[in-house]
Amino acid sequence: METTIAVEIETLDRAYEMDANWVERVLDLIAAQDQVGLITILNDQHPADVADLIEQINPSQRSALMELWGMEMDGEVFAEMDEALSADLIEELPSDVVGEVMRDLETDDVVDLVEELDESQKERVLETLDVADQVAVRSSLSYPEETAGRLMARELVMAPTHWNVGQTIDSLRADHDLPDEFYDVIVVDPMSKPIGKVPLYALLTANRSTPMMDIVDQEFRTIPVMQSQEDVAYAFNQYNMMSAPVVDAENRLVGVITMDDAMEVLGEEAEEDIKLLGGVGDESLTDTIFETTRQRFPWLGVNLITSIIASIVIAQFSSTIEAIVALAVLMPIVASMGGNAGTQTLTVAVRALATKDLTPSNAWRVIRREVLVGLFNGVLFAFIIGAIGLIWYGSAMLGIVLGLAMVINLLVAGLAGILVPLTLDRFGIDPALGSSALVTTVTDVVGFLAFLGFASAMLL
Amino acid sequence: METTIAVEIETLDRAYEMDANWVERVLDLIAAQDQVGLITILNDQHPADVADLIEQINPSQRSALMELWGMEMDGEVFAEMDEALSADLIEELPSDVVGEVMRDLETDDVVDLVEELDESQKERVLETLDVADQVAVRSSLSYPEETAGRLMARELVMAPTHWNVGQTIDSLRADHDLPDEFYDVIVVDPMSKPIGKVPLYALLTANRSTPMMDIVDQEFRTIPVMQSQEDVAYAFNQYNMMSAPVVDAENRLVGVITMDDAMEVLGEEAEEDIKLLGGVGDESLTDTIFETTRQRFPWLGVNLITSIIASIVIAQFSSTIEAIVALAVLMPIVASMGGNAGTQTLTVAVRALATKDLTPSNAWRVIRREVLVGLFNGVLFAFIIGAIGLIWYGSAMLGIVLGLAMVINLLVAGLAGILVPLTLDRFGIDPALGSSALVTTVTDVVGFLAFLGFASAMLL
Repeated sequence: METTIAVEIETLDRAYEMDANWVERVLDLIAAQDQVGLITILNDQHPADVADLIEQINPSQRSALMELWGMEMDGEVFAEMDEALSADLIEELPSDVVGEVMRDLETDDVVDLVEELDESQKERVLETLDVADQVAVRSSLSYPEETAGRLMARELVMAPTHWNVGQTIDSLRADHDLPDEFYDVIVVDPMSKPIGKVPLYALLTANRSTPMMDIVDQEFRTIPVMQSQEDVAYAFNQYNMMSAPVVDAENRLVGVITMDDAMEVLGEEAEEDIKLLGGVGDESLTDTIFETTRQRFPWLGVNLITSIIASIVIAQFSSTIEAIVALAVLMPIVASMGGNAGTQTLTVAVRALATKDLTPSNAWRVIRREVLVGLFNGVLFAFIIGAIGLIWYGSAMLGIVLGLAMVINLLVAGLAGILVPLTLDRFGIDPALGSSALVTTVTDVVGFLAFLGFASAMLL
Repeated sequence: METTIAVEIETLDRAYEMDANWVERVLDLIAAQDQVGLITILNDQHPADVADLIEQINPSQRSALMELWGMEMDGEVFAEMDEALSADLIEELPSDVVGEVMRDLETDDVVDLVEELDESQKERVLETLDVADQVAVRSSLSYPEETAGRLMARELVMAPTHWNVGQTIDSLRADHDLPDEFYDVIVVDPMSKPIGKVPLYALLTANRSTPMMDIVDQEFRTIPVMQSQEDVAYAFNQYNMMSAPVVDAENRLVGVITMDDAMEVLGEEAEEDIKLLGGVGDESLTDTIFETTRQRFPWLGVNLITSIIASIVIAQFSSTIEAIVALAVLMPIVASMGGNAGTQTLTVAVRALATKDLTPSNAWRVIRREVLVGLFNGVLFAFIIGAIGLIWYGSAMLGIVLGLAMVINLLVAGLAGILVPLTLDRFGIDPALGSSALVTTVTDVVGFLAFLGFASAMLL
């Protein structure tokens, strides 16, 4: 009995993890050049899972799969793939296959795919589309990257203000050019200005004779077409929206954004913060070793500069260290604790800025909080590290020097950890970008300076 | 003209940021004890924005606001609030106000609120609910925390397999106990097993005589009630689901999860990873200074231990450092570069595990990649740091020692950065938990050991 439960929990735990046997079977079919078998096994799976498989296998397996799959390729798979990889793959596909792939997609997904391509490739892909889609995609591409205009779908469902529920439903039944999925009917005035949104559940539960204006959603918000995708995602998350109409500068309806697009952006933005804080750029597991090495090099370069600055501080105290070698042994502790405390504050601040919980209204209170938390933990660890210094080297004065340096460094860590991201944000720079390096430079310099400075003054 | 554009961009940039004037006005109304004014200004805003306001103001302002708001309080505001804060506030509210607050909420939101409360408070809140809701909430609470059972709503819309579109729409129009919002009708067999899902847009665009079974969604997935909320969020994101039926062990329909719940979990999980990697627990800006100090202390304590381990390594080379004090100046560079490179790999690995892009199928290839990236950047920085060592201290041998230690430490950093999270994950531990401390311990120890070890062998 207990074994069964354990197995069940294990199965639940590994839910949705890619099945290694499935990957093996796909690779076997590719090796055997079994086109029918491959198409069957791939069509059987959700496009998102096929996309994951393609990301997981190595580049030569990938090319072989693409070639064998050929005209049967499912466009949705490209929409689900890592964007850099899908751009690479599309460049290598013959134009007739590209046309086939694009036919499966809504215009917003086509925009996602082509915006990663260079100009000549972009033209080649656009020419495979029919004229109406080409116009829609080109017009989306005319908006800046990472704005609502790039994110929105052109396919939408509208009703004029004077219709009732019955008229709207009849027109939906008659219309054969509807989007694949939709959740609201947007009510527009004769100037194409959105007046409100009627969710489908409201449409379905109302009587046919009810005027549309009677069931229009009260919490209706429009998204300006030039709004940053970050703010779009924030609005969807904050106001639990399932879809929102996008309007131009004259407030005319130009498209619609649905929650799945917003969810993707929200994921990307959190991902970006994690990566920037971890000192990596926009890399993915499908990048080559060479690309990855090159991408990480500049981040390590910045770290080299900050650690050399710290070393220059240490060098000023060479004679002190020569006299008391224990200082060299203990000094990394003070610097490391400061770096850690600074990173703690920085992490909280970067996320609070992203979720707009940290604003000018409470900035001063948060700064005060971080400084006091730094001070309190500084005092606590001053006693601990002081005692360790005393016991290890038998010198009370060394313990006091360690403790004093610890208090100062954790206090400064709290201050730097909150002021650096706030300042970057104020100047319109992503607060996660480079703030780790800046904060640890401060805590390294202050840590070494305080510890070795007090030591020179009090121990020599 | 240019000024107008600049102002417009600025406005877009700060979209959705809390308006400081609005906060001021609310605080003025509280100070003036103007109940009518306060209720008007709060009802005017989205509950999510009111929740943000309550998070931002200080505790005494918060109590004053709650008291003045009283029976007019909007339950949705509590559903949008930071969970620890909403629990604190509910504990202080009189029971009649709690009852009023709960009446506004769907059962899944009530579950979210009460699960944070202690037993006696939980009972007090549950008793304010009507019997049907009480049963639903108690039954949700019987599932473990962070499972689909806790996340799902009990309110759902079903249709038997033999109905057609017209029958379903008529029954929806007649039913006055529908959920506030819904996106699909779940088709169930006589045993309550879900057979499929009909999205509302399919229901609306089909003819009344179409059998429901003809338009059932092909990509229909059920969520086991015991599935972890992390996996639920992953499934929604991976398969672009708007809602999904939840089933018990006998595959009977017990509830429904909608995308807004999944989006919230996805956000929480990314948030958790960022915070764990940054060495902070589940803290928020509304925590007091004392709580924050206490929460961060253990993380700093772990860091103290790891930095003492590094110091013990340095202490073994005291006589070497005494002989060549330049070593003390330069040794933090090697350790810091290793820590940084290790964090880079760790960050990528933790995210790839969370998104299930890193699996047993590609683990070996990723390990090889990380080791090679570490090696290549190690060699590049070995030349740079070697040259710096040579120029700074005029010793070619010191440059060689620095370079060798750098190659070894960046190689080890890549290896530790990938193996630590993979191992934690294999043992069912969150790979973000404590992995930063483990990786930097390794890179500190190896960095100091390699640099001081080579120095002892080659420079003395």
